[in-house]
Amino acid sequence: MSQRYGRFITVEGGEGAGKSINLDYIRSLIEAAGHPVLFTREPGGTPLGEEVRELLLGHRHTGMADDAELLLMFAARAEHIARCIRPALERGQWVLCDRFTDATYAYQGGGRGLSEARIATLEQWVQGGLRPDLTLLLDLPVEIGLSRAGVRSEPDRFEREQAAFFQRVREAYLRIAEAHPARVTVIDAAPGLERVQAQIDRAMHGFLSG
Amino acid sequence: MSQRYGRFITVEGGEGAGKSINLDYIRSLIEAAGHPVLFTREPGGTPLGEEVRELLLGHRHTGMADDAELLLMFAARAEHIARCIRPALERGQWVLCDRFTDATYAYQGGGRGLSEARIATLEQWVQGGLRPDLTLLLDLPVEIGLSRAGVRSEPDRFEREQAAFFQRVREAYLRIAEAHPARVTVIDAAPGLERVQAQIDRAMHGFLSG
Repeated sequence: MSQRYGRFITVEGGEGAGKSINLDYIRSLIEAAGHPVLFTREPGGTPLGEEVRELLLGHRHTGMADDAELLLMFAARAEHIARCIRPALERGQWVLCDRFTDATYAYQGGGRGLSEARIATLEQWVQGGLRPDLTLLLDLPVEIGLSRAGVRSEPDRFEREQAAFFQRVREAYLRIAEAHPARVTVIDAAPGLERVQAQIDRAMHGFLSG
Repeated sequence: MSQRYGRFITVEGGEGAGKSINLDYIRSLIEAAGHPVLFTREPGGTPLGEEVRELLLGHRHTGMADDAELLLMFAARAEHIARCIRPALERGQWVLCDRFTDATYAYQGGGRGLSEARIATLEQWVQGGLRPDLTLLLDLPVEIGLSRAGVRSEPDRFEREQAAFFQRVREAYLRIAEAHPARVTVIDAAPGLERVQAQIDRAMHGFLSG
């Protein structure tokens, strides 16, 4: 990788995994090492992408067609890469992104059962060779995550369905980590914050000094 | 085709071809033949699709990434087919649509130079075997169309670029008509309305009695 290029770091994880607080922490580690950071998120990260995010995550269009969901996700991603991620990396900035394509494999592929072959085709179209240099996967058992996210301990039918969905998401994330061990570091997000951040320190220390 | 299925008719054409007034006319012919018609348009046709239309055609996101434009177009189309076109055809309604995938080949492919192979892949994904039963292409020379649409007769540089773009769109439409002669009927939209509608009468008479 050329000296002028920044690094591309993504953070992934399910419900209640502590993504927000740990993203702030990772950002502080990168800045402390002297690298300028662009902090962004998916879906979103551009004016167009944020409007698409609202279509995807808002409540106006629940039950949209599977293909519509997948194509909107990658439309936002194409804009994000062209207008934000690639230019930043080329300027030498580091990019720290809250979720990226692994989340599409985990949520749309694993969780909702959309075609992984289509996801892979769209990934190749919009990203070309661009992949994260490092992905931190904040992993924890679904029941702990849902309980941290405020779901009751006696789940009703909808919540049990929700738990089964998040179980498939978790398993898809762990399969990605297994398939890409050099890129993805699994962080055990079950213990207290100090022990989670000690694991992040180790992963980031190796990466920052690499 | 099963008795219970409606027919799917699309109308295509460039600037100043008289699409609106002729769509109304075609609709009246179908209704006069006793068929219930769903009249719709692309991009759009559903609540989600109309919001995507605004992203595509509004002025907030000019210069969006090519892939983003193409994926948004087909996201709207996937929703349109799943929520509107297929259910109507299955109920036995006829569907009359103001623009469809031919417009993507003409405007994004021919006009803007986006990959026709990608358009074909997305067409197959979101449509499966669904194609219009009949397409009326309102064709006329670009200079006549632009002059009807209100462009001055002494074009400036931007207008000349615009004319070259619409020339590529027209040529792409005509290539589609050549490649699909059984589906696409070219209507010469240059003469007065009466002579245009006489051509439409002939095309629709053959189709309605077919």
